[in-house]
Amino acid sequence: MTGEDLYAKVMELAKRRGFFWPSYEIYGGVAGFYDFGPLGSLLKQKIIDKWRRFIVRNHSNYVVEIETPIIGPSKVYEASGHVENFTDPIVTCLKCGRKFRADHLIEEKLGIDAEGLSPEEMTRIIREHDLRCPVCGGELGEVKLFNLLFPTQIGPYEGNKGYIRPELAQGMFVAFKRVLETMRGRLPLGIAQIGRVGRNEISPRQAMMRLREFTIMEMEYFIDPEDEEGSCPFYDRVKKETLRIRPYKAKETGEPPREYTVEEAVDAGIIIHKCMAYWMVIGKRFLESLGVPPENMYFEEKGPHERAHYSSQTFDQMVKVARWGWVEVAGYSYRGDYDLSRHMKYSGQDLTVFKPYEKPKTVKVRKVILDRAIIGRTFKSEAKKILEEASKLPEEKLEAMASGREEPVIAGKRIPREAFRIVEKEVKITGRKFIPHVVEPSFGTDRIVYVAFEYAYREKAGRTILSLPRDIAPIEAGVVPLVEKDEKLRERARQLYEILVEAGYHVVYDESGSIGRRYARLDEIGVPAVFTIDYQTLEDGTVTMRDRDTWRQVRIPLEEAPTALRRFLYEAADITELGIPVEGTGED
Amino acid sequence: MTGEDLYAKVMELAKRRGFFWPSYEIYGGVAGFYDFGPLGSLLKQKIIDKWRRFIVRNHSNYVVEIETPIIGPSKVYEASGHVENFTDPIVTCLKCGRKFRADHLIEEKLGIDAEGLSPEEMTRIIREHDLRCPVCGGELGEVKLFNLLFPTQIGPYEGNKGYIRPELAQGMFVAFKRVLETMRGRLPLGIAQIGRVGRNEISPRQAMMRLREFTIMEMEYFIDPEDEEGSCPFYDRVKKETLRIRPYKAKETGEPPREYTVEEAVDAGIIIHKCMAYWMVIGKRFLESLGVPPENMYFEEKGPHERAHYSSQTFDQMVKVARWGWVEVAGYSYRGDYDLSRHMKYSGQDLTVFKPYEKPKTVKVRKVILDRAIIGRTFKSEAKKILEEASKLPEEKLEAMASGREEPVIAGKRIPREAFRIVEKEVKITGRKFIPHVVEPSFGTDRIVYVAFEYAYREKAGRTILSLPRDIAPIEAGVVPLVEKDEKLRERARQLYEILVEAGYHVVYDESGSIGRRYARLDEIGVPAVFTIDYQTLEDGTVTMRDRDTWRQVRIPLEEAPTALRRFLYEAADITELGIPVEGTGED
Repeated sequence: MTGEDLYAKVMELAKRRGFFWPSYEIYGGVAGFYDFGPLGSLLKQKIIDKWRRFIVRNHSNYVVEIETPIIGPSKVYEASGHVENFTDPIVTCLKCGRKFRADHLIEEKLGIDAEGLSPEEMTRIIREHDLRCPVCGGELGEVKLFNLLFPTQIGPYEGNKGYIRPELAQGMFVAFKRVLETMRGRLPLGIAQIGRVGRNEISPRQAMMRLREFTIMEMEYFIDPEDEEGSCPFYDRVKKETLRIRPYKAKETGEPPREYTVEEAVDAGIIIHKCMAYWMVIGKRFLESLGVPPENMYFEEKGPHERAHYSSQTFDQMVKVARWGWVEVAGYSYRGDYDLSRHMKYSGQDLTVFKPYEKPKTVKVRKVILDRAIIGRTFKSEAKKILEEASKLPEEKLEAMASGREEPVIAGKRIPREAFRIVEKEVKITGRKFIPHVVEPSFGTDRIVYVAFEYAYREKAGRTILSLPRDIAPIEAGVVPLVEKDEKLRERARQLYEILVEAGYHVVYDESGSIGRRYARLDEIGVPAVFTIDYQTLEDGTVTMRDRDTWRQVRIPLEEAPTALRRFLYEAADITELGIPVEGTGED
Repeated sequence: MTGEDLYAKVMELAKRRGFFWPSYEIYGGVAGFYDFGPLGSLLKQKIIDKWRRFIVRNHSNYVVEIETPIIGPSKVYEASGHVENFTDPIVTCLKCGRKFRADHLIEEKLGIDAEGLSPEEMTRIIREHDLRCPVCGGELGEVKLFNLLFPTQIGPYEGNKGYIRPELAQGMFVAFKRVLETMRGRLPLGIAQIGRVGRNEISPRQAMMRLREFTIMEMEYFIDPEDEEGSCPFYDRVKKETLRIRPYKAKETGEPPREYTVEEAVDAGIIIHKCMAYWMVIGKRFLESLGVPPENMYFEEKGPHERAHYSSQTFDQMVKVARWGWVEVAGYSYRGDYDLSRHMKYSGQDLTVFKPYEKPKTVKVRKVILDRAIIGRTFKSEAKKILEEASKLPEEKLEAMASGREEPVIAGKRIPREAFRIVEKEVKITGRKFIPHVVEPSFGTDRIVYVAFEYAYREKAGRTILSLPRDIAPIEAGVVPLVEKDEKLRERARQLYEILVEAGYHVVYDESGSIGRRYARLDEIGVPAVFTIDYQTLEDGTVTMRDRDTWRQVRIPLEEAPTALRRFLYEAADITELGIPVEGTGED
């Protein structure tokens, strides 16, 4: 089966059974938007919840989740640099008016990698190769920059511009100080968020891979830049694990990714910080737990010209999919103090962290003072004013006057050189003030939902099976009476359905059609276990429990269904451990 | 304690401990936006999950959840009527340029209820009473309508307007047909969604009560308008329950709300449809389960001029809060076929549902035909063309010609009256095609989070306790070593912490400060149970488990903590049922 074939089958299943489809279909669709249907929405919720477990709950003493608005005032995105830098090159056909993303068009039509080139350079390439409008053949205009922020206006005053957030990060940076306070001021502090963002792509294609609106799962992990050890308390637990990495230098020389142990990559400086490496390991485990085999995944370092404006190192977590080859599902950036510094500057607020020393340090500092006696003698009644003014001057200014680098004029009077005196003073320092650095793992939820879905797609005996990892299956169990028309079977089946719903499971009850068709319908949407009520149920109160993947069945007492289901879904129990095997099952 | 005092205390706690606070504080704030901090975000998630259980999971055979985009193309909101109707009256000061919501200003300054008045009427009132700018005293301009949709642009073409959705509903209507297909075409079908919406309020005040961006939990419940019984399968389970209702007529005559049984309200036509009543009961139970006592809640019917443009009946679910009195936390609207009809018209797509009859019906229909013999005789070689044309004409047109209401001209020829013949024909009809009606319960999540928070606020012995219902407490358990400095106690405490995290709980480990201070800190954020590791733990492996509300403690074996916690949180177990009471506890 080719990649295209697999993709077509996957999308057909996705639409037909209600996982996902292009939004606004009845209006002809709008590129870059997708709906999640009943099953897709459940699958997405399960994946989000798993992310929460991996990132937040497993680190609950120093990672928290918050929720901030989608709409933000202009100022925030001026500070973040997005108003200036969050752009793509665009070119317009002078004849038909169509607009294209310039670097993509150049790459597609001329085979030239134009990522990161300036608009002028791209215009030059277009002119040199006489590249024309791919639709009407008309001449193309100058390449310009198009800002990808979705603009809006907040409130009734026309000047009050706002934007839809292009990433979650700024919400965490702006709220950082308050969150830090609620966590008693301690670092490391991870602030996670899950939510929708908008990026006004010029011409989104690639279905779920490039959307204009999508859900990000992201964490800003704030650390003390001088305390690499303390910032990564669980580093030792992961340092022997391996990661497949392709440093950007290897990409330049055409080398493929290779395996490194975490320790190796950190010690060799391939990953610049232990915290980056730690969260990359967690991200790798997360994707593996969604069904992506390790050989179909690696981390690609971005080169200096490919990185976002805030990043000093970025790795993309790449996963192979049928149609598009390697796609990015997560990014790991070392954002340093870029964002907090910018917000300090734009807001005028102090966003530094104070870290007390274990015991206060006493240090000697040089200080310039004015000799009161000399000032008093020289300036008489004006002396008081001069001393007062002097006390308000910054230390550097006094020092410059004392050393002659600046005119010694205070309160309009020229101060004689001999009035300046340098003294040494002992000062007690109780701690250190600094701007935290930030490591950011950021996951594209919609792509990951697609990836999990595609990797789960199987065919067996001419039928489709969605072999999702059991713990993320949207519907957790099916309940079916063996025979459609038998009211006694139906009644018991509905009882079991209610028991499982009561126990908190998402269950489907299905009574119509042949039993084989019903199993097939449930396999196709990835229901891990199906409980069947048959005539033996009426005799001895047992039901059969069927495994989606092996089609094997076991008999268990009806009332044990919730417990068996829990063990099957969340404790990776094999179906044969859960009851008495039913002979002849396994090949339907 | 006055309402204002309670509100001030609640908000102080919310900010200090990280539940919620105004967004963009470091930039001076932007009215109408709130952040959820670490604890608020967890509380909100729990409330959302509970809603899912009440609305979706408990009705999983016919209610599903989907997720659609926040940004929508203009066409969708033209169809929905929002571009035309989703407005508030605004008035601008001609001197200082400040803008005000006209009806609120009139009500506030003149005490005149201006809701639903036209802009002209409001302008007249302003002129008559010489109402002036409350800030600068300047003259006010004409009252205009301000559209509350947040505008944006989709993609690089300037004509492509888009909006941030003001409600979730349109996403469900637009996707209705596809969702219905995945559910095998059956009604009733509830399509639920939880997500953020934007309403560009003119001057939002009232903190969390009136936001420009907030989270809605909503369901569009699609039904066959001719099958009230079948649309509401669980009606019998709720018909004896009571609801406090204030019909709009009672409001007009100044009568307070009174209790009705569901049956009574439905039979008397106070609630126009059983499905409305059913979901109102579920909504009442939901709010009760979040800690709102029944006497602080009622349903207020909206009068004809207060209802949204799509509604034929609307009830607001009102809850009493300290500062603002009665506020709306949910709305129940009978939207009829308004939305689907409009989308059919604007999209040109067929959104009707076909409902097969149990067995096909044979009905007799009158039909007008042309007598072939007469036509042949009269028109000779042109007869064929005339008969062809006639077969394409709609039935009504032929009938009008036959009855003389219209000129009998076909294919340019005058047809003699006697050529028209009326025949009776038997037609087999297999089912009925109709546009479903919609009942919509819609909940304001942020308000509900605030309500649950305020109702949980208690003071006891000079301390604050957040008595949230246990099953929505953000942090489910605390683990503390009795003594801060004892490494042995700390080690065992960390072990228990890991056990509880592994079992899926959100747990806080706290070792600093006196034990009393730690209990107080945990009570204040609503942690239902705290496990304490003390010296007896080292001897016999038991720990104490403390109840936030009664301060009573029991001893249990350490390894039973996860089970005891589950029973305490989700099965409403009393603390004293869970272990051996510790003497002298209960009054800390």
